[in-house]
Amino acid sequence: MSDLIKSWLPSANAPETEFPLNNLPYGVFSVDDGDLRCGVAIGDRIVDATGLEAAGHLRPDPDADVLDAPYWNDFMELGPAVWEAYRLALTAILAEGASDDVQDLITTFSVPMAQATLHMPFRVAEYTDFYAGRHHATNVGTMFRGAENALPPNWLHIPIGYNGRASSVVVSGTDIRRPWGQLKAPNDDAPRWAPSARFDIELELGAIVGLPSDGPLSVDRAFEHIFGYVLLNDWSARDIQAWEYQPLGPFQAKATATTISPWIVTAAALAPFRIPTPPRETPLLPHLADTSPMNHDIALSVTLNGETIAETNANELYYSAAQQLTHHTSAGCPMRAGDLLGSGTISGPEKHQRGSLLELSWGGKEPLETASGPRSFIEDGDTLALHGAAQGDGYRIGFGPCTGTVLPASDDPLAP
Amino acid sequence: MSDLIKSWLPSANAPETEFPLNNLPYGVFSVDDGDLRCGVAIGDRIVDATGLEAAGHLRPDPDADVLDAPYWNDFMELGPAVWEAYRLALTAILAEGASDDVQDLITTFSVPMAQATLHMPFRVAEYTDFYAGRHHATNVGTMFRGAENALPPNWLHIPIGYNGRASSVVVSGTDIRRPWGQLKAPNDDAPRWAPSARFDIELELGAIVGLPSDGPLSVDRAFEHIFGYVLLNDWSARDIQAWEYQPLGPFQAKATATTISPWIVTAAALAPFRIPTPPRETPLLPHLADTSPMNHDIALSVTLNGETIAETNANELYYSAAQQLTHHTSAGCPMRAGDLLGSGTISGPEKHQRGSLLELSWGGKEPLETASGPRSFIEDGDTLALHGAAQGDGYRIGFGPCTGTVLPASDDPLAP
Repeated sequence: MSDLIKSWLPSANAPETEFPLNNLPYGVFSVDDGDLRCGVAIGDRIVDATGLEAAGHLRPDPDADVLDAPYWNDFMELGPAVWEAYRLALTAILAEGASDDVQDLITTFSVPMAQATLHMPFRVAEYTDFYAGRHHATNVGTMFRGAENALPPNWLHIPIGYNGRASSVVVSGTDIRRPWGQLKAPNDDAPRWAPSARFDIELELGAIVGLPSDGPLSVDRAFEHIFGYVLLNDWSARDIQAWEYQPLGPFQAKATATTISPWIVTAAALAPFRIPTPPRETPLLPHLADTSPMNHDIALSVTLNGETIAETNANELYYSAAQQLTHHTSAGCPMRAGDLLGSGTISGPEKHQRGSLLELSWGGKEPLETASGPRSFIEDGDTLALHGAAQGDGYRIGFGPCTGTVLPASDDPLAP
Repeated sequence: MSDLIKSWLPSANAPETEFPLNNLPYGVFSVDDGDLRCGVAIGDRIVDATGLEAAGHLRPDPDADVLDAPYWNDFMELGPAVWEAYRLALTAILAEGASDDVQDLITTFSVPMAQATLHMPFRVAEYTDFYAGRHHATNVGTMFRGAENALPPNWLHIPIGYNGRASSVVVSGTDIRRPWGQLKAPNDDAPRWAPSARFDIELELGAIVGLPSDGPLSVDRAFEHIFGYVLLNDWSARDIQAWEYQPLGPFQAKATATTISPWIVTAAALAPFRIPTPPRETPLLPHLADTSPMNHDIALSVTLNGETIAETNANELYYSAAQQLTHHTSAGCPMRAGDLLGSGTISGPEKHQRGSLLELSWGGKEPLETASGPRSFIEDGDTLALHGAAQGDGYRIGFGPCTGTVLPASDDPLAP
């Protein structure tokens, strides 16, 4: 575990900040309805990376502007050597000992975070959602198929995943409208068209592919292709899902929205927090086997209207993001900069460590007691937020908020 | 059924052409390794729509170039009124009676199709694959679950679909490399990593969303949002699929490639061929119910190394593309110009009408006798092609080829 790297910016050294110099996450911001710009969080400020590039400073690519568009995709495509060089350059100018001229420059090219609006930090090329948390898969499987058949037979051999919908990914703070859908409870005679009554969250970690590829990637190469991570809330309509998901998987249950945190926390910033995946019950096939620690020790929690209702850790993932990406590419699937890989819900072994209301309320049979009243699923007006931080020695690496408020369903949007 | 609209270009009036003036499909072409340009097929020539626009003729948007990029997405976003106006303008300049000056202009701004290379006609925003063919769903269900449980309970109520992988969509003529994957036959003790031995085609019709949307679309509005159609071959590794698809649906089995035909046949060109969907066994919920004929009478066939092995018709689809799109948007999923909706395999009731080898060989139990030898699934070197045409009175609306040759699997791409 490395120590805090001290900055000349006092707020970056405060114990409570999510954005010490060790972090340097990438986002997109605007001020006063102005242009969207690429920015880097440091303490209580955002460095205007677009402005610096345009002024001839800190140019990731000397020959072309890559931060002149309001997303980090073009930067990601430049690859790991540029990612590292840019991070080193940022670190140098923000670290204690930087010259007064440099400090003046950065002060000019930065804004107080409190004045900024945050936007999607990257264009989501495509979005894939995995199912890589063992406790979640076991809990859901137990509810749906009984304890004996909880884990599907393939689960211990493949990081199971499905393609999601990139167009539905939104940034933290976006309100979420409760969806309508086709619903049919097991005892209903026929399906009906109605607002979802079992709307839920999923606490996930999202990995962002930075480097494109065009064929199978080994686990080691896959790890190198991952640019960074975000918190990810895969809003899920459980009643739509139950009726639709056989035989081809979740579709409209997951199509309303997926919320991500606004800052891409880089793989480099999380490097000190790498840990192994949990013990294997059965060995993985060689092409998927662990080669080094590729999970991360990141404390995660969920709040409902400000009250913590779940606490877990990203170290619960049975498959690392690198293993997910290796499997994703195994049949030759091309990957692009900005592909987003959700981990699947991350739950721990204990009841208070479950990353979805479905699990926390055990399918609604054991409503959760909260200060807002009992909850089986989300009520209109509820604000759900995910929180994540890796705890270093005297500093922490945070992701910023990943929050959304659920609005009531509209009147029937397809009424004749 | 309308009659042939005669062109001053003789090849457009030939009975065998796929591209009479009634068609006017949109593609992207290059000549002699030159720039990629937007083009319109007419008889044996391609009109250079990009060149015409740049020269100030036939400008879809008077105020901006929309055909200067090598895809039709920007044009699609302009919406149905522009689609119609552009089609009318093209028809006028290509119809009998056009002035000599106009004919000279078009001759200047067109190339022989035989000299052109065709490319992807649009950027695939996202790709969704439905399961809207009843005979296919019944056949597959019978093989997997027995005749009594062939159709899943939701099948007659929802156009079941799953998200596919846009990055894997390729244009006709692209060679397809047999994928590796994780395979486990029911009697195997453990899975293994090996090339797919049950690689297959799926004969589908692809619908292209032209107009973006941000909420549920009624069936009538959904129909208006569909710009056109392509033939679509959803290459499928059945052995990967069998092991992976529970519980979250197909993933790597469908990730190697999906091939589309190179010409977008517009909804306008297919308007004379609209017919109702098949009789409903049970009424659809009102928001999904048919409002007018939205299926199409399009004869479809599959050839293996040039030999016809299946013949069916797009009129077999139980759900029209408009109904697929209505369901797709029902939970609020945003759609974008260039979203591609595969219909799912289109099979007829008879054995020779089945649109996949899985069905034609009944899971390999009844190998198909072909001039290339018996076939249960695809052999290395096989060329598979889809063909489609709507037959008018003295003309036909064709899609051009949708073909691919399967190359042998590479050596283990993930060997240590």
